[in-house]
Amino acid sequence: MKKTLSEIASHVKGKVFGDPGVIIENIRGIDEAREGDLTFVANPKYLKSLETTEASAILVSPGVERADKNLIVVDDPYVALGQVLGVFYPEDHDPPKASRGTLIEEGATVSQDARVYPGAFIGRGAKVERGVVIYPGVYIGRDVAIGEYSILYPNVVVLRRCIIGKRVILHPGVVVGSDGFGFARPAQENIKIPQVGFVQIDDDVEVGANTTIDRGTIDKTWVKRGVKIDNLVQVAHNVVIGEYSVIVSQVGISGSTRLGKGVILGGQAGLVGHIQLGDHVMVGAQSGVHEDVPSGQVVSGSPHLPHKKWLRVVASLAQLPEMRKSLSSILERLEKLEKEAK
Amino acid sequence: MKKTLSEIASHVKGKVFGDPGVIIENIRGIDEAREGDLTFVANPKYLKSLETTEASAILVSPGVERADKNLIVVDDPYVALGQVLGVFYPEDHDPPKASRGTLIEEGATVSQDARVYPGAFIGRGAKVERGVVIYPGVYIGRDVAIGEYSILYPNVVVLRRCIIGKRVILHPGVVVGSDGFGFARPAQENIKIPQVGFVQIDDDVEVGANTTIDRGTIDKTWVKRGVKIDNLVQVAHNVVIGEYSVIVSQVGISGSTRLGKGVILGGQAGLVGHIQLGDHVMVGAQSGVHEDVPSGQVVSGSPHLPHKKWLRVVASLAQLPEMRKSLSSILERLEKLEKEAK
Amino acid sequence: MKKTLSEIASHVKGKVFGDPGVIIENIRGIDEAREGDLTFVANPKYLKSLETTEASAILVSPGVERADKNLIVVDDPYVALGQVLGVFYPEDHDPPKASRGTLIEEGATVSQDARVYPGAFIGRGAKVERGVVIYPGVYIGRDVAIGEYSILYPNVVVLRRCIIGKRVILHPGVVVGSDGFGFARPAQENIKIPQVGFVQIDDDVEVGANTTIDRGTIDKTWVKRGVKIDNLVQVAHNVVIGEYSVIVSQVGISGSTRLGKGVILGGQAGLVGHIQLGDHVMVGAQSGVHEDVPSGQVVSGSPHLPHKKWLRVVASLAQLPEMRKSLSSILERLEKLEKEAK
Repeated sequence: MKKTLSEIASHVKGKVFGDPGVIIENIRGIDEAREGDLTFVANPKYLKSLETTEASAILVSPGVERADKNLIVVDDPYVALGQVLGVFYPEDHDPPKASRGTLIEEGATVSQDARVYPGAFIGRGAKVERGVVIYPGVYIGRDVAIGEYSILYPNVVVLRRCIIGKRVILHPGVVVGSDGFGFARPAQENIKIPQVGFVQIDDDVEVGANTTIDRGTIDKTWVKRGVKIDNLVQVAHNVVIGEYSVIVSQVGISGSTRLGKGVILGGQAGLVGHIQLGDHVMVGAQSGVHEDVPSGQVVSGSPHLPHKKWLRVVASLAQLPEMRKSLSSILERLEKLEKEAK
Repeated sequence: MKKTLSEIASHVKGKVFGDPGVIIENIRGIDEAREGDLTFVANPKYLKSLETTEASAILVSPGVERADKNLIVVDDPYVALGQVLGVFYPEDHDPPKASRGTLIEEGATVSQDARVYPGAFIGRGAKVERGVVIYPGVYIGRDVAIGEYSILYPNVVVLRRCIIGKRVILHPGVVVGSDGFGFARPAQENIKIPQVGFVQIDDDVEVGANTTIDRGTIDKTWVKRGVKIDNLVQVAHNVVIGEYSVIVSQVGISGSTRLGKGVILGGQAGLVGHIQLGDHVMVGAQSGVHEDVPSGQVVSGSPHLPHKKWLRVVASLAQLPEMRKSLSSILERLEKLEKEAK
Repeated sequence: MKKTLSEIASHVKGKVFGDPGVIIENIRGIDEAREGDLTFVANPKYLKSLETTEASAILVSPGVERADKNLIVVDDPYVALGQVLGVFYPEDHDPPKASRGTLIEEGATVSQDARVYPGAFIGRGAKVERGVVIYPGVYIGRDVAIGEYSILYPNVVVLRRCIIGKRVILHPGVVVGSDGFGFARPAQENIKIPQVGFVQIDDDVEVGANTTIDRGTIDKTWVKRGVKIDNLVQVAHNVVIGEYSVIVSQVGISGSTRLGKGVILGGQAGLVGHIQLGDHVMVGAQSGVHEDVPSGQVVSGSPHLPHKKWLRVVASLAQLPEMRKSLSSILERLEKLEKEAK
């Protein structure tokens, strides 16, 4: 694909500095870009590469204007990058023509406009809306609903009665609706509590590869509109995740915990069960959250502390061996003074 | 389904307080329950919801008797909940009638009473006993044995020679028998050590979605009777997990480590290799266990400490910056005193 | 299989002590071994079992010679073990004769000498070289390349345009080429940035069960020659992992982070994005690495410290409650002295 810089600028609603007629054929990272490539600087850490990049043009933020480069200045270069990538690399989800080997159980309702690959299974009572893409190896259990234009990548499993909204993306290996981990008399008899609830995933949610979301024990586990979950995350039974929250890779959320809107959980963080995190709470990577966190707070550490306090604790921690030495010497000097004082 | 409160009470061996003839049609959580619903209080945290619940009846522990509600009093409301859920929501694992697309290799032995979905693969020499359910996308390797009434959910993989007991439940995406992580001259040549052992999973074990259990290098990795493992757990080669142990989500157990009976590992805990945990050891969430732990001990932290000691360390940790300030001021005052003493 | 000790010794280039004619039929761990078995001691922790083992012969390191046992002395018993295991337990990857149900899309190129199981999917434009083994449930996306003699175990997913080298092993459930986790205006609008790059995995790499490797946003995520990755590891977009590095289970590597050669990451360690680790860096289990680490360094802790410093901090940490008490008593004594000095 070939586009002029000014065509691209008008698509991303940006302003050209330099030659508006320069031809862009490809998009590449700032260190890999060559002539004909458009690149971008979204993270200030990479501003220094502006000096050396061979890209024909660069998407930058306001204030980065410079005379020696062709630039498109936009409010948010990362958003603009997303828009151009969508234009240069449109994605194709069409299955092969002959779809022998597709296993649709009698009693399933699949839209004529859904695209189902061979090797997928759709159970009776399931409803698959128009525009949905179902890749090979996907299992859709009985009475499951999949909303318009959702994409289920290979080997995704959605078990009985779960509800998936519109434009949801489930990456390969995602499991939705596995049994919650509920046992009476744990470590003695481990009596299984049947998990008869379901999972509800609202519109515009994306779930990363091999992430697992357990069904509610009786009611539902609920991932609300616009939530983005990374790979290998664990969401336990009866958890509720508020709109537009962002859950980074390998996080674990224990049973019945509820997150407000716009919560961000850093990678490998863990949350105990039965707690509430308010709107826009941020949790640092590897933190362990053991009790409610009010809206707007930033917390870090395991067990968690307010983020600023945690920073001070961590700074002191490195000094701990010296503090211990200092304590010994103080004790000696004190004893000496006390003897002298007698 | 409709049952009277007294019918339910007799099923769970409980005692009715209130109206024994009230009709129950459904089971729901305490905040969601409406007229016609039975609910429960197993965690004291939810006792306050007793005031406001609209449920027609509630499963409670002894001592929660109150005149204004219909109650069933039982020793363990969570166990009783499990019993009623099993009655109200019986699970159906029947595959579709036509099971074209099932791939059973010549030389496999599959019971007439096993239920095999289309899209499953069963290798030669494998033995699948009666009552077993094998969902689509399951791979059963050569010479594998699957005991009576076990359930293998979609996309489970059990590799060559592994042995699965009776009434075992493997949730979607579980991998049993992948190669252990064994390399000679690590980070230099990474020479692969063939992993030729197997995995043995005993009766009544349940393994959570996308959990991985590696085969022994030469001998076996062994998950004993009644063990319950949550989602996304890693069990390395030659690990032994004792009867009725409970392993919470995202735990990692390194090679050759052995757990006694009734051990509980909290979420995201990690154990180094070649250590032993005695019977009924409890390990806190996110802990790092680096050496043997004797029977009955409770440990927390990374590296782990006895739980009570860890609680004191954690309490002091938050005071660390103040301790550091205090040390500086002490040093100043001490110097002043020393000068004066001269 | 039966072999004499001297045949085995000549295969592993070792020296026999004891009876060279003793017959070996099997290989077993030191505690399980019986007559007819060969065993080994690679970890000094197990040297004490030499006293009690019933094995007919033992692979040991130089310096372990003893008169009462049949031994093969080799430089590296673990390497030698790997060699004998390969001889005694050759692996068989042949698919069943009739491979009905294999789904190869028109326009895919599959070598006559590749072995493709039924229930695998290969997209158009994909190229599968000779000697490759593709198990059931594997999904190979469009324009993917799989190099000679690679093995893709059941339910592996390799998405569009990814490149897999020669002799690569992907264990069950591995996902290669899922979308990176890139969203503009996080926790507010979560605007998806299309992930249009790919993953390149070089020769002789092994990737553990259910591990996920995301595609680059624009360029590539790159796992270099000889790297070994354990189960349930997360490799984010644009990460580069240097030759022969070893990544233990449940590690998470955030976006654009680059590892040098021969790096070792301990289990459950986490690395933030956009940092560099030099050659032969070692990171302790459960560590959190938040900034660049120069070549050759060993680091531990979260946030990480130089390993030796971390050991001292950890040792002091257990003393923290006592230090706090000591501080209080010092303050009292100091005040007393100060009063007296007035």
